[in-house]
Amino acid sequence: MANEVMAGMESNAINPDIARERLKATFDPLELTHIFDGGKERTTRRKELENLLFSDPLFCLRDNIYLSTSDLYSATMARSVKLFRLKQDQKWSEDDLLLALRLIRDQNCLSLHHSMFLPALERLASDDQKARWLPLARRYHMVGTYAQTELGHGTNLMELETTATYDKATDEFVLSTPKLSSIKWWPGSLGKTSNHAIVLAQLVVDSKKCGMHPFMVQIRSLVDHTPMPGIKLGVIGQKMGSNHNDNGFLFLNNVRIPRENMLMKNAQVTRAGKFLTSGPNKANYATMIYVRVMILSWSFGAISAAATAAIRYSSVRRQSSLAPGQEESQVLDYQTQQYKLFPTLASGYGFFFIHKVLSAKYKAMLVDMQSGNSKALPEMHAWSSGMKALITDITTYNMEICRRSCGGHGYLRASGLSDMVCEAFPLATVEGENTVLYLQVARYLLKQIAKALTGQQTTGTTEYLTMNEASYICPLQKPVDCRNPDFLCEVYKKRAYRMVLKVAQALQRDMESGKEQAVYMNNNLQPLVRMATAHCYYLAMRSYIEGLASLQVSPPARKILDKLCCLFGVHYIVTLSGDFLEAEAIGLEQLQWLQELELQLLAEIRPDAVTLVDALDFHDETLSSAIGCYDGRAYERLYEAALKEPMNQTEVDPAYDKYLKHLIMEGAQSKL
Amino acid sequence: MANEVMAGMESNAINPDIARERLKATFDPLELTHIFDGGKERTTRRKELENLLFSDPLFCLRDNIYLSTSDLYSATMARSVKLFRLKQDQKWSEDDLLLALRLIRDQNCLSLHHSMFLPALERLASDDQKARWLPLARRYHMVGTYAQTELGHGTNLMELETTATYDKATDEFVLSTPKLSSIKWWPGSLGKTSNHAIVLAQLVVDSKKCGMHPFMVQIRSLVDHTPMPGIKLGVIGQKMGSNHNDNGFLFLNNVRIPRENMLMKNAQVTRAGKFLTSGPNKANYATMIYVRVMILSWSFGAISAAATAAIRYSSVRRQSSLAPGQEESQVLDYQTQQYKLFPTLASGYGFFFIHKVLSAKYKAMLVDMQSGNSKALPEMHAWSSGMKALITDITTYNMEICRRSCGGHGYLRASGLSDMVCEAFPLATVEGENTVLYLQVARYLLKQIAKALTGQQTTGTTEYLTMNEASYICPLQKPVDCRNPDFLCEVYKKRAYRMVLKVAQALQRDMESGKEQAVYMNNNLQPLVRMATAHCYYLAMRSYIEGLASLQVSPPARKILDKLCCLFGVHYIVTLSGDFLEAEAIGLEQLQWLQELELQLLAEIRPDAVTLVDALDFHDETLSSAIGCYDGRAYERLYEAALKEPMNQTEVDPAYDKYLKHLIMEGAQSKL
Ligand SMILES: Cc1cc2nc3c(=O)[nH]c(=O)nc-3n(C[C@H](O)[C@H](O)[C@H](O)COP(=O)(O)OP(=O)(O)OC[C@H]3O[C@@H](n4cnc5c(N)ncnc54)[C@H](O)[C@@H]3O)c2cc1C
Ligand SMILES: Cc1cc2nc3c(=O)[nH]c(=O)nc-3n(C[C@H](O)[C@H](O)[C@H](O)COP(=O)(O)OP(=O)(O)OC[C@H]3O[C@@H](n4cnc5c(N)ncnc54)[C@H](O)[C@@H]3O)c2cc1C
Repeated sequence: MANEVMAGMESNAINPDIARERLKATFDPLELTHIFDGGKERTTRRKELENLLFSDPLFCLRDNIYLSTSDLYSATMARSVKLFRLKQDQKWSEDDLLLALRLIRDQNCLSLHHSMFLPALERLASDDQKARWLPLARRYHMVGTYAQTELGHGTNLMELETTATYDKATDEFVLSTPKLSSIKWWPGSLGKTSNHAIVLAQLVVDSKKCGMHPFMVQIRSLVDHTPMPGIKLGVIGQKMGSNHNDNGFLFLNNVRIPRENMLMKNAQVTRAGKFLTSGPNKANYATMIYVRVMILSWSFGAISAAATAAIRYSSVRRQSSLAPGQEESQVLDYQTQQYKLFPTLASGYGFFFIHKVLSAKYKAMLVDMQSGNSKALPEMHAWSSGMKALITDITTYNMEICRRSCGGHGYLRASGLSDMVCEAFPLATVEGENTVLYLQVARYLLKQIAKALTGQQTTGTTEYLTMNEASYICPLQKPVDCRNPDFLCEVYKKRAYRMVLKVAQALQRDMESGKEQAVYMNNNLQPLVRMATAHCYYLAMRSYIEGLASLQVSPPARKILDKLCCLFGVHYIVTLSGDFLEAEAIGLEQLQWLQELELQLLAEIRPDAVTLVDALDFHDETLSSAIGCYDGRAYERLYEAALKEPMNQTEVDPAYDKYLKHLIMEGAQSKL
Repeated sequence: MANEVMAGMESNAINPDIARERLKATFDPLELTHIFDGGKERTTRRKELENLLFSDPLFCLRDNIYLSTSDLYSATMARSVKLFRLKQDQKWSEDDLLLALRLIRDQNCLSLHHSMFLPALERLASDDQKARWLPLARRYHMVGTYAQTELGHGTNLMELETTATYDKATDEFVLSTPKLSSIKWWPGSLGKTSNHAIVLAQLVVDSKKCGMHPFMVQIRSLVDHTPMPGIKLGVIGQKMGSNHNDNGFLFLNNVRIPRENMLMKNAQVTRAGKFLTSGPNKANYATMIYVRVMILSWSFGAISAAATAAIRYSSVRRQSSLAPGQEESQVLDYQTQQYKLFPTLASGYGFFFIHKVLSAKYKAMLVDMQSGNSKALPEMHAWSSGMKALITDITTYNMEICRRSCGGHGYLRASGLSDMVCEAFPLATVEGENTVLYLQVARYLLKQIAKALTGQQTTGTTEYLTMNEASYICPLQKPVDCRNPDFLCEVYKKRAYRMVLKVAQALQRDMESGKEQAVYMNNNLQPLVRMATAHCYYLAMRSYIEGLASLQVSPPARKILDKLCCLFGVHYIVTLSGDFLEAEAIGLEQLQWLQELELQLLAEIRPDAVTLVDALDFHDETLSSAIGCYDGRAYERLYEAALKEPMNQTEVDPAYDKYLKHLIMEGAQSKL
């Protein structure tokens, strides 16, 4: 009878509400799609890969929700292997591979091999070592991971406890995780997949600690994949999300490796037991920046996917009505719903441009470094750290808002949103925990403001620290000024300046009053985070504007993009208005204008909302959202997804016979 | 070898860091434990039940993470049946049962039977019907649920599409879900457990719609539990959490039930097809309030559990150090960590008192209603709706902060925190979606301010709307004033007043300018939410103070409780400072004092932090947090949890033989 109900609905019709949305667009979504893809040809290539992958049932990602953790791991392995065969057979470029991985939401068991193991070899191995290992690794004979975090240490890598002790007698290193807290814990692909690991360990030579260095350790047999002697390893257990990845643990019980297995590009131990080093490794530092910049791009993808699902669903969900007695309204028409979703959308768009700007700066820095100039490193480090922290904070927060905005259905895994949220949450933790990153930015800012206060000129991202505050006049002199992103940016700048100055002065006072540094720094840790955040908002706004400005687009597209940028700028001033008032960056009158403008912008963006998410052009399979599909057939797809649920394959659950039956049967006999 | 490592650690020792914390306490935790339990005897009773339940391996909740969804359902059914047998055999009181359910975190397949089905029978059935059904339901022969939400409607229950059409010829109702959007979707225990459902449906008599009414429908056979003719049902699929519950869907294809199956207490259809009603059902209304008040208590439990796990873990986690060169610091010593956790803790404590106050008001209202006085209903409705929305917003937001504050390990399901967060998220959606609730509060406030503006006296929660704003002098005249919760409460009040007034005036202007009501209401929807939120914060602060004031405690306990209350008050002013500045409830000087005081309070609470969560006295099994156990043995327990993971029961995963092996083996042959 369910089928009768279903039969009553045309099975391929697009939901009429969402179809109508698309007629309202003021711009051509394809123009933006090409921008996001990086050009028309890349859009074409993406569609080719989508057709190739998603015509294969192996890549039916939406069925992940029916799998147990171990079946999910197995399915992911099948996909990974298939993908790398495709790459070889079809001679994909590296870009193609990255694109394909993005299309399957990085559901890949060999991701650490690609993102960490191979790059670490390139970066840290000597030429000899490269010649030995890289071909094997590229052919997946060596399948590897990078083992850094331990049960006891993640943030503070200086205190990792795994040791690699040089044994001159045998010309070997002895690797050991001496305590429970020393075992490697978290590295991706470590539990079941990898047969090699680059292990970060404290080098000990002649009982002297020589710092953290990378060592190549074979962890599983190349014949039958069993753990090597002295090694115990496994998965660390289920996680909130990302269960396709076998994040693992690793005990090393005096595992001996030849001296040549220390990755020797930047430091060496000689046969005679002499430790040589060429000093701190700037390439490592640059890699850290690279990863943080990459995370901006992932954040763009994650927040945009959530916005896509939530906005599409909000256009087909009708609930209550704005005008009593009339047809129920699309929930997207409620101002409150727009307030949840459009700043999120504007943020997602912004992250695309912010990533672009930072990515270009990063590349420029690499070029400079190749010619021996690494002056830009400290600033790029602070900048990328700050953007990573701010943008992943906004991403994770707003994705959960998107999920909730779908009411009860957003709690179903079939909605896609709950998995998206659970997969995105770690962005705030990995590659530098966000609080720790803000504190790094703060330390950079303290150095710069100290310069500025002693009359030196600061440059680049902190140029504003030499600003003459007395000359600040709020650029928002009338309501229409609030539509000017450059003016908004000035407001962000002023707030950042005042916050930095205020904390710097407080620290100065504490120092002069003779307090211990450790004490007064900790007494101001939260203000330091707050000041760093203010700085990051300013940089985000600035890069959003800069990225947008460099764009070649048609006037209609430009118009809507400008609105999103403006909404971004306005929204975070309004949300954090206390900071801006406190910093005297705006007054109460400006706040009122901005509040009104924000509501106005929501109404202006409303007609383009669905088209703006269409422009992001997520394939339905990539999105895996029953409520967020292009066709808007939310209810049909939720229902279809439920029918596939394993528990629905039997009418009466086994738990009835085992347990419930007895309760019900006894209840038939009157005893009360 | 892992075992060698483990053997190196004394297996039952309490972590010395957490042991040291307990020596620092300024008060006796047991005193507070008794308060939370509702008296010393209830503490004793709780411990008895804990011993009884948790000595039975059936109730090993921490092993839930290893189960597939269907095995989890089955385990939960076993627990549910066991629990109700215990209740009968050991003659538990209703309070005992509720307590036991709380101890097992409501992991119960029959929860809807108890929380909705039985109460609905009591409330909605006629005396005859009660005599017929209640004994069977109490003996679990009838196992039931309450089927309200449909695929297409949750919030707007007036538009439910399921119909119950009276067929005079046969003296029956014909129940039908005519469209896909009409199928019941979400009710707990519906998919697999229940054999009866009270179905909310549009009553149709003589082709006339007579509104929503409840109907008793048998959905599964009492002989073999198969679905009854005309009925199709199942689970709606996996959720972000709460997968022990078989939330289900239900199609009704012209299912006929006798006329006597309409629940007839408040409305009847006679044999002749005449519809009679005694008007709107105030008892229903009261039930809605009851459930919202209950949610405050659940929120207290949820946020407190998360704070317990995060604070305990933060006391044993050492990472980096405050003073360079020294031993690594407990992360709980970082001000930023305290800033994440102590306002959360203070909020949790607050919710306990707020719930107490509201619960007492609710009971008083019931007494009044029994004597025919239901004057208090509208205010209690707005009050409970507002508190539900605000407190679940704070709860869900802060629980995720707690999870993140544990770094990577908070992402492991074994940490308990990820499951806690996923189970708590729906609090913001169910029993009134929060935005919708704020809007209800806003409508109540608009009515009251309209009264106030025409010179009528408002009373109770909105008494302040008749405040003379001109006479407001900020009570915070010097820094120490900020420690006075009553003064803080005045500040919250002033902010609420100004926000309500501002929106009311804006609406008035729009109305006078001749705009349509639907238009100007929607143009102000977000400001309405904001103003309602401001009102709710004021009420929360007021009830926190009131609940605390009525408490009999020793001076040391009083002292720390007052600090938490003050921190709560200060924290949300500082966090939302823009609102307070905008409302001129405080000035910049006061803001500065409050910011400083907040940091000061963090330091003052620090020594008692672990003891404050110990006082909440969650049993380790209830908490199910490897990192939050009483003994602080976070690493040992994480490791033990990982060893039990099903994927760790084999050394080489089957996915190796199936897929990975081929890649690795082919890679051995040089082809590059
Ligand atoms: C999904 C996922 C995948 C991962 N994959 C890998 C991987 O492939 N390889 C790998 O090596 N690791 C991996 N990790 C581990 C990850 O790198 C760490 O979890 C991360 O670096 C955070 O460190 P932590 O867990 O030690 O947090 P902690 O440092 O323990 O943080 C706990 C709390 O302490 C606070 N804190 C810590 N230090 C300071 C300080 N100095 N000042 C103020 N506050 C402080 C933090 O703010 C936080 O609130 C992964 C983690 C996750 C969640
Ligand atoms: C874990 C869980 C358990 C549940 N258990 C049960 C159960 O046992 N029995 C049962 O009957 N149901 C149950 N439900 C369903 C639940 O009652 C509904 O999901 C809830 O009432 C929210 O309604 P909705 O899903 O229709 O949200 P929607 O109303 O569709 O909300 C979607 C969005 O629209 C907005 N919106 C809707 N109306 C308005 C308006 N008038 N003005 C402004 N904005 C609006 C909301 O703010 C939200 O952002 C459960 C749900 C969950 C998640």
